[in-house]
Amino acid sequence: MIKVSVLYPNSEQAKFNLDYYCNSHMPMVQDKLGNACKKVAVESGLCGAKPEAAAPYIAMGHLYFDSLAEYQQAFAPHAEDILSDIPNYTNTQPEIQISQVQL
Amino acid sequence: MIKVSVLYPNSEQAKFNLDYYCNSHMPMVQDKLGNACKKVAVESGLCGAKPEAAAPYIAMGHLYFDSLAEYQQAFAPHAEDILSDIPNYTNTQPEIQISQVQL
Repeated sequence: MIKVSVLYPNSEQAKFNLDYYCNSHMPMVQDKLGNACKKVAVESGLCGAKPEAAAPYIAMGHLYFDSLAEYQQAFAPHAEDILSDIPNYTNTQPEIQISQVQL
Repeated sequence: MIKVSVLYPNSEQAKFNLDYYCNSHMPMVQDKLGNACKKVAVESGLCGAKPEAAAPYIAMGHLYFDSLAEYQQAFAPHAEDILSDIPNYTNTQPEIQISQVQL
């Protein structure tokens, strides 16, 4: 299984509408990706290694697929719709990490 | 639920022994953290947004707890044992992200 992680960097200027992300953006993404997307996960940043340290990421979203090819096939036709929704919930530019799930 | 993510930055010099991490380090960590640790996950970096782009992180490990307080209580007595094992599987310095699980 592969995991597509969308990591939204934290900063003093970073804004992130978690309610919109969880209740509007992610359902839209799941709807467009269809059955190829096996699971989604969302987290919001609390802190770094120490409670007083800022979290490196203000939020993270994760999408799971059986393979990289299945992700690419599912995502490509909807890339523009999905990416153009980003300014509706954040002023940050996400980093993308695609990973092989090991455990 | 909270998620402690240990993110190992990728670079041309980065080395990571995934076999040791999955089969020695993580079982040791789970053993020391005990029942406070509800779940673990491990991923290895495949690529960035495009298949030819390097993954931002060479590997990521995640530990789930019911609360930040339970993580802190479970981790503190074993911090030195756990952290001193890092050079046995990587030459990178991990970033720590503690998150609130939303979805």
